Order: sequence, then structure tokens, then C-alpha cells
Amino acid sequence: MPDFPTLAALRAAALAPSAGDDAAAGAVIARQAVLTKPPGSLGRLESLVAWLARWQRRPVPRLQRVQVLVFAGNHGVAAQGVSPYPAAVTAQMVHNFAAGGAAINALAAQAGGALRVVPLRLDRPTADFTAAPAMTEAEFLDAAQQGAAAVPAECDLLCLGEMGIANTTAAAALAAALFGGTGWAGRGTGLDAAGVAHKEEVVRAALARHAAALDDPLEVARRLGGHELAAILGATLAARRRGIPVLLDGFAVTAAAAPLALLAPDGLDHAAAAHLSAESGHRRLLAALEMTPLLDLGLRLGEGSGAALAVPLLRAALACHTGMASFAEAGVAGRAA
Amino acid sequence: MPDFPTLAALRAAALAPSAGDDAAAGAVIARQAVLTKPPGSLGRLESLVAWLARWQRRPVPRLQRVQVLVFAGNHGVAAQGVSPYPAAVTAQMVHNFAAGGAAINALAAQAGGALRVVPLRLDRPTADFTAAPAMTEAEFLDAAQQGAAAVPAECDLLCLGEMGIANTTAAAALAAALFGGTGWAGRGTGLDAAGVAHKEEVVRAALARHAAALDDPLEVARRLGGHELAAILGATLAARRRGIPVLLDGFAVTAAAAPLALLAPDGLDHAAAAHLSAESGHRRLLAALEMTPLLDLGLRLGEGSGAALAVPLLRAALACHTGMASFAEAGVAGRAA
Repeated sequence: MPDFPTLAALRAAALAPSAGDDAAAGAVIARQAVLTKPPGSLGRLESLVAWLARWQRRPVPRLQRVQVLVFAGNHGVAAQGVSPYPAAVTAQMVHNFAAGGAAINALAAQAGGALRVVPLRLDRPTADFTAAPAMTEAEFLDAAQQGAAAVPAECDLLCLGEMGIANTTAAAALAAALFGGTGWAGRGTGLDAAGVAHKEEVVRAALARHAAALDDPLEVARRLGGHELAAILGATLAARRRGIPVLLDGFAVTAAAAPLALLAPDGLDHAAAAHLSAESGHRRLLAALEMTPLLDLGLRLGEGSGAALAVPLLRAALACHTGMASFAEAGVAGRAA
Repeated sequence: MPDFPTLAALRAAALAPSAGDDAAAGAVIARQAVLTKPPGSLGRLESLVAWLARWQRRPVPRLQRVQVLVFAGNHGVAAQGVSPYPAAVTAQMVHNFAAGGAAINALAAQAGGALRVVPLRLDRPTADFTAAPAMTEAEFLDAAQQGAAAVPAECDLLCLGEMGIANTTAAAALAAALFGGTGWAGRGTGLDAAGVAHKEEVVRAALARHAAALDDPLEVARRLGGHELAAILGATLAARRRGIPVLLDGFAVTAAAAPLALLAPDGLDHAAAAHLSAESGHRRLLAALEMTPLLDLGLRLGEGSGAALAVPLLRAALACHTGMASFAEAGVAGRAA
């Protein structure tokens, strides 16, 4: 039985996401206050532990089972010449992941995470969304279901990544449709200024083509997204249900999950932005989602690379929380009265 | 034989720091270009590996031996009421480090680093620098020598941290003397607005007291610094000589090392800013040094916490560099012509 047997079931889950555990987060905050450090001096490391506790629904969170999921898909819009790389690279990189030669292999290992790559119909790209919806309802639902099914039942942290030539064009179209405005197209894997202008024009044409149907965030995801992007949406939603915090990678992953924040105000509260991508639309997208990225190191690779890179920060935050002595235990004086 | 037997020897070393290995850095950059990723898409992870190679003077850098050094000292200016914590906390925290209960214990372990804490004359604070030079020349040289001596002969990365009640006041005085301007005083371990105003006044009084002797960066370090801050300067200088890249922690560590950048334009090129501290002067100090921090997570703890937290980023960067396949090895197509 899939997590979301029908589109209606998926929509219902997205409209009413399960709540976090306030008591678990409160227990973390109470312990932080007695550890041997000035109050608040570990900054975001302190709030990250509370966030883990809230969404794992455990007063003492853990990071034993970290899963990196990379979804791969191909895009009909690649035919519009929006990437400097041929579409065949998507499948070639999936082979590279399997052989252990990609950045995400190294980064997932460093993060102490298990890596699973889920290719989605690489031989059947989505339709070119400048001419038709990218996916039928059945295709969209199937991709979202595959994403949900890939989320382990027991897992402490999920890192989401993607691979798909032309998917920053899809992400730009999603962002434009969900949040409005123009100028969402960026350099992707390395377009020059003329290439970016062409990509922006492709996005404009797509929005014009689907203008009458963009009020519904899920319909936006179906018409302008992609198989791997729908899988990310499904995985993010399933993680919420299973009590698994999520680290989102860059622009494409964030755009893929963004419909959840529009369907419910707290729909992405269990997800954190792992990093700020150098892809130009990402900063604006995170601002629209009121998310502050953990890292800002100019990455623009995808594959879940930024998400995996942030895992050691969470491990460090948790190690401080569970390993530090209290003022009383350590015999250290507190603040002057 | 100490690294710097005399103040003149220390000055000579600081005025003529040894060069980095351009060929080693070039070898890294050449390899980055053929790995299975769009050029530059790992952002700062790519330049960090080249930086490690340049200062380790090895074409394939390594991170097997990571040393975290925390220097601790006490400050006569603490008597001016510039911290909400009593000066006794410095020694109490040194005991906490030894017992394994502090944040840096957890963070050094997460970083895969060895932790060594070096207390410097905790029972003999520096002089109150609003009334006299903080240290005699002999005391300053001794502290710098202890810092240099603590740097291992063989080491792949050095993380520098400090502990010393009132040392953000010393750091603010150093920054003001070295870079000019007012408003360097910040909240430290948790001062309120009135406390910060008082601290600023203490800094102003110190600068007025030593105004005639602030042209020489080493004299600034002696008059306005502290034992642990002089040790950090000595350790940073010794690391350069031994081919060891350095991660600087927050405001106090950066201020302690800053004289080296004024004595030679490339004096801190082997050092990177691990993070941006929430201590207000740090952003301005890094800007003056033209350093871009690796992390910005609102930490303001000291102890080397931010430096240790950044180590996994370097490990991840190196893992990508050494572990990834080339386009040719992986059979992945490159960019369209």
C-alpha cells in the first residue's frame, strides 16, 4: 500500500501535516540552559538539536541512521537547449553514483550516511512543459509514490538530492509559478549570459502555456516539475509522517518541496535548508520560504552534495548536547548575580 | 631551542613568512578540472583543497593529524568588571576541558582531532592594561614561545582556540589599536547594553593610555593582549614555518593573530577564518583582514569551537578531491562544444 494511494490522499496529507513534539524540543532547550557555556553561545547548534528532537519526536535525538536519497529524472525541456550538457549525462551520472565516483559518494561517506540513488524512468523524459504538462496525473502520482517509498521506515535524518539534466529550468519554472516574478533562471551547470536569457525565455513560455492552471501548488508540480522533483515532494511528505527531519539540498530540491509550504504554513517545518547554492534563484527561494541555510560555500552541483555536507554540523550539535557537562557537574561558576 | 629565541627573532619571522607551494596548489586545481562535476561546482570546497596543498606544500594534501590547541590565560582587566563571569571560571573551565565536559571536547572528537589545552600562568593574570602594559617583553616572548612550542612538528591542520575571562575586551583593544575606529566592544559572554558601553569605555581608556606606542603590531600585542593571545600569535607563526594550515576560531583568536597580517601582507595566508562569531567585532575584523569565514552559525563560545566545527568541511572537500572519478574514468560526457 503506497503512502499516498491517490492524488487526493497526497493532497490531504500535505494539507494537514503531522505536528512536531513540543515537549521533546522543550526538553532539549531546558538541558541547553545548564550546560557549561554561556546561554545561547553555541548559536544555531542549540536550535538544531531542538529541531531534531521536535521532528524525531524524541527528547534526546539521535543520528545513527542517516539516509541520503538522490532521485534522478530526465526532462523533455532539455530539448530546448537549456543545459550545456547532453541529457545522456543523467544516466551516465547514475552509473557514476553506482560506481562510487561522484561527489555525493565521497560526501555521503564523510557524513556517515547510507546513499541510495533512485532513477525514475530515465528512458522516458517528462514532456516538454513549454508545450504540454510535464507529467500526466498518473505519472506525477507514481513519481511521488516512488519518492515516499524510498524513505526508510526507521531513519534519523534524510538528505535529499537530485540529478537531472535541465532540472534547474524546471526548478526556475516551479519557483516562478509558486512565488511569482521573473528572473528565476540561473547558470545551472554553466550557461553563459545568452544561455541564461534563453532559459528565462523558456520559463516565460512555460508559464504562459500553463497560466490558467497555476493556482494549485500540486498542479504546478505536475505541469512544470519532473519525475525526480515529484519524488522529492513525496519523500519530504513521507518523512514528516515517519518522524524524520529532512535536509534539503539546493535550488532544485528546494523548489521541488516548496509546494508543501504553500499547502500548509508549517508544511516544511521538518525540513532545513542545508546550504545556499550559487544557483542564483536559490537565495530568493529560501527567502520566500523564510529558511536560513546552514552553509554558504558556493556549491552548485546538486546530487544532495550540500545536504550531505551539512550532516557533520548536526552531528557536532548533537555531540555537544549529549556530551557536555552541566555547570553543577563540572564545578564551574555561573554568571555573577 | 625555542622557535623564536628573542623578540627580534620573532619579529624577523613575522616580517618574512615562508612562501606557499604554488606547484602543489596548481596540481590540485588541475585535477579539479577533470573530476565528474561541472567546473567550479563544488565552490569553496575546491579552493580549500588548493589552500591545504599550498600550505602543507604537498600536491595531495592530507588530514590525518588534526590538532586542536586551546590556550588559556587570565587578564588583569577583568578587575574592571568587563565580564559577567568571575575570573576563576578560566581555571574552572580548564579543569572542565581536562575532564572532557566542555563543548570543545565534543567538537574536537567529532572533528577527529587531538585536543590539547595549554594554560598559561592562570595564577598570574596580565597587568590591567588600562594602567600598564599587559605584559613585560619577557612575559610576552615567553607566552609566544609556549604557543610555538605547542605546535606539533608533524601536523596536517591546526585549530586554534582560547579561554580567558575578559579576553574579548583584550581582543577589542587589539582590534581598535591595529585597525582603528571605535565600537569594537561586544557582548562577550553575555553583557547587556550598559555592560558593553562600559567595556567600550575600558577599551578607550586603554588606547589612550598606550597611544604613543601603538604603531608597532607586536607592541600592540604585548601591551593590549594576553598570555593566551600571545601564544596564539606564536603558534600561528610557528605553523607557517612547519607547513601547517591553520583554522582560526572567533574574535579573540583572530585579533590575536592579526598583527601577523600587518607585519607581512601575506602573513595570515596560511590561516582561514573557520566561522563568523556572533561577537559583534568579528565581522568587521574579518573584513579588515579580507577573510571570508567558512561558517556563520551564531556561535560565540570560543574554546576553538568554531574552528573544530569547520574541520569536517575540509575533510569533505578533501574526500571529494581524492575520491571522485574523472570524466574519462567514469565514461561521462563533458560539456557540449
